[in-house]
This record gives sequence, structure tokens and C-alpha cells, in this order.
Amino acid sequence: MASVDVPIALLGYGTVGAAVNRLLTESADDIERATGHRLRVVKALVRDLGKERDYPTEPANGKGGVLTTDFREIADDPSIAVVAEVMGGVEPAGGYVVELLRGGKHVVSANKQLIARRGAELFEAASSANVQLRFEASVCAAIPVIKVLRESLVVTNVHRVLGIVNGTTNFVLTEMEHGKSYGEALAEAQAHGYAEADPTDDVSGADAAAKMAILATVAFKSRVDLADVEYSGITGIDPLDVAAARELDMVIRLVGAARLVDGHYDVRVHPALLDKQHPLAKVDGAFNAVMLQGDAIREITLEGPGAGGTETASAVIADITSVIGTMGTGFLQNDAAWRELPRLPSGDSRSPFYFRLSIEDRPGTLARVAEELANREISIARLLQHANGDGAALHVVTHEAPRGALVGALEELERLPAVHRRSHPLPVVSERGVTELGWT
Amino acid sequence: MASVDVPIALLGYGTVGAAVNRLLTESADDIERATGHRLRVVKALVRDLGKERDYPTEPANGKGGVLTTDFREIADDPSIAVVAEVMGGVEPAGGYVVELLRGGKHVVSANKQLIARRGAELFEAASSANVQLRFEASVCAAIPVIKVLRESLVVTNVHRVLGIVNGTTNFVLTEMEHGKSYGEALAEAQAHGYAEADPTDDVSGADAAAKMAILATVAFKSRVDLADVEYSGITGIDPLDVAAARELDMVIRLVGAARLVDGHYDVRVHPALLDKQHPLAKVDGAFNAVMLQGDAIREITLEGPGAGGTETASAVIADITSVIGTMGTGFLQNDAAWRELPRLPSGDSRSPFYFRLSIEDRPGTLARVAEELANREISIARLLQHANGDGAALHVVTHEAPRGALVGALEELERLPAVHRRSHPLPVVSERGVTELGWT
Repeated sequence: MASVDVPIALLGYGTVGAAVNRLLTESADDIERATGHRLRVVKALVRDLGKERDYPTEPANGKGGVLTTDFREIADDPSIAVVAEVMGGVEPAGGYVVELLRGGKHVVSANKQLIARRGAELFEAASSANVQLRFEASVCAAIPVIKVLRESLVVTNVHRVLGIVNGTTNFVLTEMEHGKSYGEALAEAQAHGYAEADPTDDVSGADAAAKMAILATVAFKSRVDLADVEYSGITGIDPLDVAAARELDMVIRLVGAARLVDGHYDVRVHPALLDKQHPLAKVDGAFNAVMLQGDAIREITLEGPGAGGTETASAVIADITSVIGTMGTGFLQNDAAWRELPRLPSGDSRSPFYFRLSIEDRPGTLARVAEELANREISIARLLQHANGDGAALHVVTHEAPRGALVGALEELERLPAVHRRSHPLPVVSERGVTELGWT
Repeated sequence: MASVDVPIALLGYGTVGAAVNRLLTESADDIERATGHRLRVVKALVRDLGKERDYPTEPANGKGGVLTTDFREIADDPSIAVVAEVMGGVEPAGGYVVELLRGGKHVVSANKQLIARRGAELFEAASSANVQLRFEASVCAAIPVIKVLRESLVVTNVHRVLGIVNGTTNFVLTEMEHGKSYGEALAEAQAHGYAEADPTDDVSGADAAAKMAILATVAFKSRVDLADVEYSGITGIDPLDVAAARELDMVIRLVGAARLVDGHYDVRVHPALLDKQHPLAKVDGAFNAVMLQGDAIREITLEGPGAGGTETASAVIADITSVIGTMGTGFLQNDAAWRELPRLPSGDSRSPFYFRLSIEDRPGTLARVAEELANREISIARLLQHANGDGAALHVVTHEAPRGALVGALEELERLPAVHRRSHPLPVVSERGVTELGWT
């Protein structure tokens, strides 16, 4: 057997950790060919040594078992240069990662919550210690969007990131389009294993918000805190929204959007109406896709499975081999978020919007609605009116308008006696290139 | 001004070369932040010193002009560690690149024809001299498919690459779908700058074949010569094909397909019928997209502009910075094509196929056709028959069948008195996951 010349340690040995060890072992030749080094997992931190594992570990080099419950066996072992954090959770993972980075070890993390919540601190620790922190697996599993942003688009000023970054909600919304209710679609997602028993994190938009915080941070090179990502989920989407979207030749999807606007960042996740011709409208079921727009490259879209144990492990290993391939050169030992841009005030975020009003079907109502919008300089791009019982349903798509003005107008409209009910406003994302109707 | 600590040389200073210099200069801070190094173009080989340039060069370090007509000023300068070949053409570019690699310089190339025709020799030269050869810009401009294959998918056994890798033909076929003739669509492509005055290389499939040879080589890690890529172009596609595709809820696109089949490679480019739901059917106009299917990742699709000076320059710079970031570590100093797999005999290549027959509309004709196909164990998936003047047009979609058997059957069918004419067979690529109708 070849000598172990790069010992790797894992924090965590669950589904992903075991898959990392399996793939590293099975593909040792491929990795050696690519990097010139033989990699082997020599330690894996676990809570329970006795638990059954997907891919059991073998004793390493006669030094005893690979599994350990003692973090110090990893942190204090100078032979370990690279550690992959695949344990999840913000603590104790965060404390471990900071200590490892400060101690001069490169760290690869698959931990979305950790990177989204404590990324700034971790980047700084890595940069100060001249080591790398990589985190491809923390966003969209095997889709290599972080590597592409940091390594391929180094000279392109990426100013907009649009993404379908949550497979659960994409699946649910796709099924609702096929006629299912929200509850039926969610149950089916759970049956397929696309949704957890408690789907709150997905359907609330929180999961997508964490991913968008990471993507925006890397794309804009600025600290974007999770708390600065505005988000809403899909629990309020009803079949009326889905039907309205269809009539407008659009679909409803949970869209993450990060933009640079006049030196401010604007990062948000909302259910949005997507033009059926838009590339993101075509993302199948539980897949994810991220569209990157930048000066030198126009736009690049990456699509693939956004979850899965093997897919995540593949991304972790890509990061490990990339660390091995760049160690000692100074590459990516920078603070990925070296600048601090201000956040765009929420009300200033511009987009075309869709909303729906239940109105009394009598002369003058439409004029009042149009007047109220015009007063706030919101112009109407499309209008559909249907009889709806006694009254009428009015579907409105506006041209691009500031969110604040639109929300204000809707609050005013709600007070009109002729307006019985109004929906939440949904941003509209239209075909790329059509900036007037783009979420730009 | 910061010191020049990594001098870069260019072979060629046309549109791409000038854009490389411009982006390197404008983004010097970003690159320094990412790599820890300051990059600067110190020499650029040109044929004509006096020609006007998109981005004029400045004298470098008081050592005289950047532009030179003397290759030796680059090859013999030990301070130059990385050279970007952006001159195009197989010679003299090929001889230069081989000499630079053998002389211990890392080379980045944007030259599709060179890599497709002489890749094996170049990889070997790089590997022997322990330097890197990178060539992202040689395939699909800024779409980072080479980097993703070599660095992100290092442990995934990529067994299938499907691509729309020629923007000209994608644009022409899309326009034909909207009712234009081939000639009209091509003229429009030329007017948009998507097609050259002499479009032969694009419309014949030769350009796509060169890209697929490179992608297959990298994906399968085996030498795939351009001569071993079977291809056909779109010049024979007529409105009848387009109409038939529409009726089958498909579109016609020039599809590159590279597969590993029982340890053999099969790489080909043909006009194909693509299910409208297939991700590649949705690639807009002159864009390119490449779908990579592998064990650990299921599939990843990358889409973006497949051409353009700035886009190509962006990819060249990504390669340069990646070389800088990995120099001295041994990373990717392997021979990208370290094994030699055999080619699958053309007749054994399996796919569902579409073809069309002009037949006499009389009893027994269909039975004869069906019998001929059955004799060769080709089963029919879909059948459409239309009245067509005196006779009938018969549209046939087969289940997966070996190309050899299908071609043989068509030759037999052509001899039947009741069959007046037959179309060329077109492979059918159906929705992903549907292996029965996949080009698998």
C-alpha cells in the first residue's frame, strides 16, 4: 500500500462523513493522479464510538482506531493539515473550526448554518493564520458554485446571483402547478424524501436565505449576515396564485436574489413569478440552479442536485483536493469577505411585482386603483380582470418599482371600500435580458 | 506601483490577448487578493508590431516594449513562468506550446483546434516537465466545464457528457423552429455576428466535434482523437424535420454526446431530436450548455455564453490564476489523458432514432416496414402517419437500437417499391432519467 502522505481528519462521521471516507478510499488513485498525493482519513470525531456506520473505518497505521470522541486528538496532531467539518450544527462545530483554523489547519466545511452565521469570523481566522477555509458543500451540494465564483470568475464583477436553492420548495411548487394543494404537494415531497418531517426550515425560506447569504458574501466579497437577508416562504401560496401565474404564462418558484445596487447589497428570498421562458423556471423538481451575472461573462448558470449524501461528500472531497493542490501557494488564503458594503434599505429594493385584489365590480374602482398606483409612480405592465362571485378579481403586474412604494400603495388600496381583499405582492422575474421586467 | 512578481507572457495579441491584458490590469487587485501575487503581461508575441490594438500595451519595466515578434524573447526568458497561448491555429502555436512546456513553463491555451488535434502530445509534454497545461477557454469560452471536470468531479466517474457546444447552429435551429428556412436563419446568425462569413466549420459539426473531443478526453481521461469523433452537421435539416419534431413535442438541436460504454468511448455530434422537457432543449439561441453525468453527482449542467472575446479572456485569466495558485504543489501536473480506452465501433452505438419515410398509401406497406425493423430487432416507440400528396409520410421513433442495425434497416427499406424516399436517421434524446428514451 502506498504511504499515507496527507492525513485527513473529519469532524463527524454520519452519512456525509462516511461517504467522504468511502469515496476517498475508492478513488485514492484518481486523487493521487490529480494532486500527486495520497489522501487518507486518519481520525474522525464522533459522539458515539459504538454506533453502526455506513462505511466502517479501519484502524489507521496501527495507531488505534480512526473514530475518536476526543477533539484534541485532531486539534493537537501536527501531522493533520486538513480537516473536513461534516458534523453540522453551529456549536460545537463553530468553536472547533475556529480553533483548527487558528492552529494552522486548513478546514473544509459542509455546514451551511455555520458559514452563514459565523462566516465573517471564520474567514478572518483563516486569513490571519494563512490557511484556507473552503465550503463548497455548504451550498447546493455538488453544484460547484463556490469554486466557480472564487476561482473561475476572479476578474468578473459578479453583480447579481439568482437561484433556486431549495429543492423541497421547488418540488412542492412544481407539484402545485400540476394541480395539487400545498398540503398534498408537501406530503408527496416528504414521501419522496425531499422534505423533512418538520419542513419549517425549507418552506419558511430560512434554508434558502442561509444559502443566499453565503453566495452573496462570496460573490460580492462583503460580509452579508444571515440577519440581513430578507425572506418569506411558500406557506402562504395558494392555488389562486398558481392559477394566476399560469394565466400570465409564468410559474411560481422560491427565488433567491442577491444584487449589488450602487454599492449596496440587496439579498432576499421570496416566492416569485418566473417567466416560463426563464432558465430558472425550467429547473426540475428537487434540483437546484444558480445563475451568476457578471461583467466579463454575461451569465453562467449551474444546475444540479442540491442535496444528497454522496453529492455533498463529492463536494467535500473536491474542496479537500483543492486545498491539497494549492497548499503553500497563498491561493485563496484571503478573507473571502474582505470589504463591508452597506445593505440596501428594504424599501429601495426595485422589482416588478404581481398582486391581486378582490374588488367590487362597479364603475370607478379600477380608476381608483390606477390612481393610487400612479400617485406613487408605479406603472402597470399587465392587468387581468375576472368576474369572481359578486365582484371581480384584479390581477396586476407592475413595471419595476421600489418595494416600499408598492407596499405603501397596497396598504392604501386595502383601505378603499371597493377593495375587499388583497394578496401579498410577489416579485416578478422575467426572461433574461429583458431588464424592464427583470428582477434587476 | 506594486512590484511585478509574476510576469506573464502571451502568444498572440488579438481580440482575446488584448482583453486578457486589459482584465489582468484592471483586476490586478482582485487577482492579488485571490492569489497573493501581482500579475502583469510583460511580453506578447505578435506578427505585426505596428498594428492597432484594442488595448495598447505599455513598456514593461524599462525593458522595452511588451510586443515582440521574436518567440525567443518569451521562450528564453527564465523569469516568465506562465504563458497564455491566444494566437489560434495549429501551427506555429503547437510547436511553441510544446517547446514552452518542455522548457518548464506552464501554458494556458484558448486554442480548441490545437488541444483537440494535439492534446495527447501536449499533455504528455506537460506531465513530463512537471508543469501544467490548462485549456478552459478552448471549450465554451467562460463556461468553466474543464475546471469542474478536473477539479470538482475528481471522484465522480463521469460516464456521459451531453452538450450544446456550438452557438451558431443552436441559434440557426432555434430560428428554424420559429418558421425560418435554413438559409434565412443562417443569414440572421451572420447578421448577429453569431456565424462567420464562411460558416462551414460550425454548420458541418466540425467545431462541435473538436469541443466534444476535448470534453471526452478530460471526462474519460483517455485520448480521444478528433478523428475518432463521428459527426454530421445541420445543412441537411429541412423544415420537414423541424415540423416533425414539433409534432413529436421535440426540437432539433446539434447535440454532442460522449459516453463510456463497457470500457469503450463513443463520441459523436449529430442533429438530434430533443424532448422539449430536456434541459438542453431550453438552451437559448447562441448559448452553450454541457451536462455532465457521473456516479457521485447524478448530473450537473453548466450553461452560458460559448463565445465572445471578453468571455474567452475571462477563462484564460481563470486558468492563469489557477496555475499561479497551484504552482509547485504537483496539482494537475498529471497527464489529463493517462489511459487509452478503445473506441466503440460506430455501428454499436445505441440510441433511439427518428426517421421519416415517404410511402405509397396502400395496404401492406406499414406491415412491410414493421417487419423489416422487427427482423433487426428494432422496436417502434412512436409512429405518426400523414397523407402526403398521393402517398403518405411515415414518422417513426424507435426504441434504443444499435446505429448499425438501424442504418442497415433503412437501406433495406429504401429498396422496397412502396417506399419512395427516406430521411437520414436522427438520434433522439429524451427527458433525463427516462433511460429507455435517453441517448444512453
